[in-house]
Amino acid sequence: MVDVLPWLISVGSPLASAWAGAGDLGALLLAEASEAELEPLVLASVLLSLITVYLAAKIGGELCARINLPPVLGELVGGVLVGVSALHLIVFPEGGTEMGSALLRLVEATTDVGPDALMTIFRGESEVVSVLAELGVIILLFEIGLESDLKELIRVGPQAAVVAVVGVVVPFALGTVGLIAVFNIATVPAIFAGAALTATSIGITAKVLAELQRLSSKEGQIIIGAAVLDDVLGIIVLAVVASLAKTGEVEILNVVYLVAGAAVFLIGSIFLGRLLSPLFVALVEQMKTRGQVITSSLVFAFLLSYIAAAIQLEAILGAFAAGLILAETSKRKELEEQISPIADMLVPVFFVTVGARTDISVLNPLEPGNREGLIIASFLVLVAIVGKVVTGFAVFGQPDINRLAIGVGMVPRGEVGLVFAGVGSASGVLSESLEAAIIVMVILTTFLAPPLLRLVFKQEPGGGSPDGEQSVDAPPGEDAALSSSS
Amino acid sequence: MVDVLPWLISVGSPLASAWAGAGDLGALLLAEASEAELEPLVLASVLLSLITVYLAAKIGGELCARINLPPVLGELVGGVLVGVSALHLIVFPEGGTEMGSALLRLVEATTDVGPDALMTIFRGESEVVSVLAELGVIILLFEIGLESDLKELIRVGPQAAVVAVVGVVVPFALGTVGLIAVFNIATVPAIFAGAALTATSIGITAKVLAELQRLSSKEGQIIIGAAVLDDVLGIIVLAVVASLAKTGEVEILNVVYLVAGAAVFLIGSIFLGRLLSPLFVALVEQMKTRGQVITSSLVFAFLLSYIAAAIQLEAILGAFAAGLILAETSKRKELEEQISPIADMLVPVFFVTVGARTDISVLNPLEPGNREGLIIASFLVLVAIVGKVVTGFAVFGQPDINRLAIGVGMVPRGEVGLVFAGVGSASGVLSESLEAAIIVMVILTTFLAPPLLRLVFKQEPGGGSPDGEQSVDAPPGEDAALSSSS
Repeated sequence: MVDVLPWLISVGSPLASAWAGAGDLGALLLAEASEAELEPLVLASVLLSLITVYLAAKIGGELCARINLPPVLGELVGGVLVGVSALHLIVFPEGGTEMGSALLRLVEATTDVGPDALMTIFRGESEVVSVLAELGVIILLFEIGLESDLKELIRVGPQAAVVAVVGVVVPFALGTVGLIAVFNIATVPAIFAGAALTATSIGITAKVLAELQRLSSKEGQIIIGAAVLDDVLGIIVLAVVASLAKTGEVEILNVVYLVAGAAVFLIGSIFLGRLLSPLFVALVEQMKTRGQVITSSLVFAFLLSYIAAAIQLEAILGAFAAGLILAETSKRKELEEQISPIADMLVPVFFVTVGARTDISVLNPLEPGNREGLIIASFLVLVAIVGKVVTGFAVFGQPDINRLAIGVGMVPRGEVGLVFAGVGSASGVLSESLEAAIIVMVILTTFLAPPLLRLVFKQEPGGGSPDGEQSVDAPPGEDAALSSSS
Repeated sequence: MVDVLPWLISVGSPLASAWAGAGDLGALLLAEASEAELEPLVLASVLLSLITVYLAAKIGGELCARINLPPVLGELVGGVLVGVSALHLIVFPEGGTEMGSALLRLVEATTDVGPDALMTIFRGESEVVSVLAELGVIILLFEIGLESDLKELIRVGPQAAVVAVVGVVVPFALGTVGLIAVFNIATVPAIFAGAALTATSIGITAKVLAELQRLSSKEGQIIIGAAVLDDVLGIIVLAVVASLAKTGEVEILNVVYLVAGAAVFLIGSIFLGRLLSPLFVALVEQMKTRGQVITSSLVFAFLLSYIAAAIQLEAILGAFAAGLILAETSKRKELEEQISPIADMLVPVFFVTVGARTDISVLNPLEPGNREGLIIASFLVLVAIVGKVVTGFAVFGQPDINRLAIGVGMVPRGEVGLVFAGVGSASGVLSESLEAAIIVMVILTTFLAPPLLRLVFKQEPGGGSPDGEQSVDAPPGEDAALSSSS
């Protein structure tokens, strides 16, 4: 016999009402399909979470725009306010907040579900919001790829490679040696902490560059190219130190596999993509139903994202490559206009949840347990900034370039740095204070980089300042490079 | 100590690689945070599902457009092909498909996760796709609201009310009496099956009307108004029969609560919304960051959707009300352009999953167990179509109206009708054959209505035909009423 319970989940809350009225019938259904009938409540929780995310993003972003700071910083800070550090409106089950979010209290108060069902709703809602955030950063990188110029990117490739490599080697060496020499930390944890200093968060830097309308400048393209390479290098470094922490040895084969996979994927997808893109355009132009450009492009972007994830790179690398390829087609303009509202819907979910997951209580110096970590953290923050700022000065053959801007653009560590802390912590290699120090370093570099980046671009000679200013004070709808709609 | 594991989930697959390399470390993390580290795999599964959904929607929609059928029918049929009835690419845990989808086999083949982890990934992926489908129908109804004309809707209100009431009473009476008299079915199951004949699926009708560019016609607005009222009536009927099935009595208080809640919500939200919408526009115009119109509108739409769900109506009623209200502001044009790509991204997820959840094996007459159900089904389908088609002839004071089109527009039962089958099945009131008959009735009315609707609009006197034709044969980007971009 056919089972129609799945249909129940596409219906909304009337069922909750009908079941509540039906007494034992409701209980029966609850026992039979423990997740399907909670679906309307998961949807309600997701709606509440999205409302909270948008309010936090908009209030934070608007306040920052008014005091001449990058709006994305406001979205991060707005996220901190609604997250685990303060209001507990957006929290995740992994965050140790087993009792769920404050929003869930509202669900609890307005329905008669038990604690078990409430946890199921909480987990479902967190799963959905997490994936929406992931889709957000995929759409962001796709948009960044669309705004980038593949030819310019290839032209600045050697400089970007130098910036990426210097930005990995210098912080790693300074950090590891410093921790061993100055703080008497053992070799393996020192290497782990040094490795955490190497990553660059491409999302935050790219968003600030877009807000400053500098994405397509030479500096912007070097930063984006270097950040993409840095993402690949970060994956390799993590694989190396994780196996070092476990066995004391490096699994060469795994490293070779990662390097080869990354190279084949990036070069292969762009080469094949350029070859096939005329076919893509011809296909889209044959279509008669609405949404043909955006739907076909999403299929392409999600496909490359999936492949990148499947070969153990990051999904966002695939999305970036898809954007780069489609930017070369005649559909670029139309696609930029149509991806913009989708980005407006999904990207804030990423930045607000990054903020919401950040527990800033480790920054409190009044807590005695934090002090040792804060002292080490000061050293790590210094190395993290200096180690990336010097990369700009490694750029060769570009006399008129804003070297400081390139270096500062590489500073934010974002979520990538915290993966190191997480893996290190779980493997037992890191002491509590060293782990806290890494987290503090990540928070400060992430939150300091956006205003610093705006500052160094404003001070640049020759017309830099007015442009940078205008991007904030412009009328609505024209204030960001990525805002190509209307 | 701060817990950084949540951060891991925003990172993508490098962790899987690093952990795979780290051996016991990976196992340790797996034990500690059984869901967080599967997040990259959930994301990968969601990406694969979305690619499948878009391919099914586009191939089905394009084929239908070419043979002059409504594209949404193609999306439904495409969904059936990739769903539980055929390819098993998009399936849901509640569908009895405990082993997960065929796509999950791909995940299984490319990673080394165990069966338990695979089920966790499957459940997470299904949860996300289900909520994306829900968001899709919310965005669809918001868009329908934006395209509707509140003044026209109020003007045709009395006619819509007559259509809705007739469309509930006639199929219910015919169905219940016929089942008792002709098929010798007991009173309570007959009432249940009769009740399943009352609902109208607003989503499918509205989408077809939009594709035919008839949404803003008088017939279109009567259908939309009646379908909205029918949604409310359906919720009330379900509450009544569910309590009847349980106790043999009707809980008057619950019915009064639902009626009062629906009236207060619909009138209150539109009244308050119109009062506050100038404030909304003023606020949006003060904003300086990108996406101000779309983000603010989404907050408004999601808020009304949440309120509607919280008072046990359907979320889509709130989204429709939000669209109606914002359609009256000066931002309507801009908003229509920006919501369009978001709808293109999310709405196909709804229609394809509706198709994917439909098990059409009950339609197979070669299976002897299906035959009794199919005979009852033929009767139910007849009553379902006749009972709604007559509603058009109940419209008064509109001599020149296309009465057949209104009646046909009310025919699709969609997911709402299946809720009755689900609740009836779970309560043990319905026999297997009667339940199968209801499902067959829902499938046939849902899939027949789109081509029928196109047919009756084409036959209408005075310029109907060329318009209806044009909406399919128009060049890309102008082929649908809702496609307001570019």
